[in-house]
Amino acid sequence: MSLMLDEIRQQPEVLERTLRQEMRGIEALKKALAARRPKMVVLAARGTSDNAAQFGRYLLEISTGIPVSLAAPSIFTLYGAQVDLRDAMVVAISQSGESTDTNLVLERAKAAGALTVGITNEPSSALANMAEFVILVRGGREKSVAATKTYTGQLLAMYLLAYALGAAIDLDDVKRIPDWTASALELEKTIRALAPRYRFMEHCVVVGRGLNYSNAFEFALKMMETCYVVAERFSSADFAHGPIAMVERSFPVFLFTPAGVTWPGLREMIARLNGMGAETVALADRSAGEALKAAQRTICVPSRLVGKKRGKLPEDVFTPIPYIVPAQLFAAALAEEKGLNPDQPRSLEKVTRTL
Amino acid sequence: MSLMLDEIRQQPEVLERTLRQEMRGIEALKKALAARRPKMVVLAARGTSDNAAQFGRYLLEISTGIPVSLAAPSIFTLYGAQVDLRDAMVVAISQSGESTDTNLVLERAKAAGALTVGITNEPSSALANMAEFVILVRGGREKSVAATKTYTGQLLAMYLLAYALGAAIDLDDVKRIPDWTASALELEKTIRALAPRYRFMEHCVVVGRGLNYSNAFEFALKMMETCYVVAERFSSADFAHGPIAMVERSFPVFLFTPAGVTWPGLREMIARLNGMGAETVALADRSAGEALKAAQRTICVPSRLVGKKRGKLPEDVFTPIPYIVPAQLFAAALAEEKGLNPDQPRSLEKVTRTL
Repeated sequence: MSLMLDEIRQQPEVLERTLRQEMRGIEALKKALAARRPKMVVLAARGTSDNAAQFGRYLLEISTGIPVSLAAPSIFTLYGAQVDLRDAMVVAISQSGESTDTNLVLERAKAAGALTVGITNEPSSALANMAEFVILVRGGREKSVAATKTYTGQLLAMYLLAYALGAAIDLDDVKRIPDWTASALELEKTIRALAPRYRFMEHCVVVGRGLNYSNAFEFALKMMETCYVVAERFSSADFAHGPIAMVERSFPVFLFTPAGVTWPGLREMIARLNGMGAETVALADRSAGEALKAAQRTICVPSRLVGKKRGKLPEDVFTPIPYIVPAQLFAAALAEEKGLNPDQPRSLEKVTRTL
Repeated sequence: MSLMLDEIRQQPEVLERTLRQEMRGIEALKKALAARRPKMVVLAARGTSDNAAQFGRYLLEISTGIPVSLAAPSIFTLYGAQVDLRDAMVVAISQSGESTDTNLVLERAKAAGALTVGITNEPSSALANMAEFVILVRGGREKSVAATKTYTGQLLAMYLLAYALGAAIDLDDVKRIPDWTASALELEKTIRALAPRYRFMEHCVVVGRGLNYSNAFEFALKMMETCYVVAERFSSADFAHGPIAMVERSFPVFLFTPAGVTWPGLREMIARLNGMGAETVALADRSAGEALKAAQRTICVPSRLVGKKRGKLPEDVFTPIPYIVPAQLFAAALAEEKGLNPDQPRSLEKVTRTL
């Protein structure tokens, strides 16, 4: 068994541990933020952590109404720009906490008077030492080069951050995430049976929208780094603005299709792709209704509870963590099918240092 | 000749006309912004216009120090979030001015008290009517589905917007852009001779960094929509964080490599790719020094002046417009080589309406 698969399976436990050990710190952060509410949030990250930031960009803006931006690190590291971040909360996200460029963004932000938060898996990292507030992903060491458990841990940290900013997130719901994740893991056999069909897939597109847009990036990244598939990623809106022209018969398109506000546009996209003879594969859950039948193939997360409407929050709000699990399993299974070692992709190392 | 090629050739004229006819409005906007300086800038767009926004994100933040964010339209259109944009300048960019979702972002922003700006090619569009300030791209009707002259027109609008926000941009330099663009058009024959080599290219990666990051998106988009090539796009930093694993012998990678702060990282990337046996193609200009020799093939913009340091601005500040021209020419030539009509990509219409 690959380390990657082993770490995918650890996720419910990692999420539960993170919740158990971080809630006290989150309550302290909530107090601090009540006294000093930021006027904007800036998220800085690279690679998989940047995909988690992409999720945070949607979740925080939707649930708190505070404008959120994804930092472009080179503006700080290469161009040396002085950005006015006095009223901002700047959040750096890094598995290792040693990502040179995101750390430099945080350092500059701190000097500019921003409130700084670090989200990392490494308690004694440079990032953890520098940030004013730290949310630790309690993942244990991540050995596989392909990040899985730290991605979902970082998504969880985003819910906690939204809560700390006063979003109407019910913590009882957040506490159900480990269970939903466990139910998604039940798909392992199904996914393993599906993988051989894609043995010779050279390229594909992954589509996600809104809260699942980040999952499209993450699924594509997993396929690029562990299966060497040229995997593009788009929101359904951007895909329709040009790139869809490259789709021909049998072109594989994977789509995240939870119930909720993103579904009507995705339904249209699936119908259009089916009409073009593309191979559509939808990831949904048992509350997703017609999404379960629209695509040519469906990967269905067993829990009925994932995609139900909750208070003021949109009904897809808790789908991203359980939905990425089958995608991770798919990448691990496909790599194995292709005879590749997903733990050691060619030409990669675990910690990437860039400026 | 395709409409696309015809419109590519019109660019110096479009840029010059835009400068001539818009400067008065820009000076008025500059006055208004001096009295009401925004604390953040939000850019909303889709497709090619979103690539122009990506450039604006770098240029405005580097040259003004005001934090800039790219809007995620679905947060407004689908999730109906109330985002606090009181202190923001919100800029919607759309060739047609009839993009349903970006217009809705602007409408919400206006209701929330933001200062609103529209950048469009259509003076009587919904966008032009709604925005408080309008910068018109004087492109004349764009007939090809693949946008070219409106992209460079939108980039020009970003320089004007930076100037209006008080950036240290010398207007004499801006006025040279049409000439630099004309000199880039001299590459048409060279590019036409290069295109047949890529007749059977099924996928590729385009790399750009910083101010040329948007060009990587735009070049990839042009190849996807007019040549049906599965073209990925990355910053060199993100490419190194995983996706580079998919590169094998002969894998084509196109890179924007101007002189300046992004070059050291790109040089490293090119050396690494060359070592992997990839096919590297660099786009540079005559001031780019060693960049002209590092890659296996180089497309060189003739002007020596494009990438020279100018006052407080980074030396690559004026490269994006002349640098996208050979990329546009390449897409048009490759489409022709493949027997495709770049003006009418399969399954696309000129105005895409999404919510």
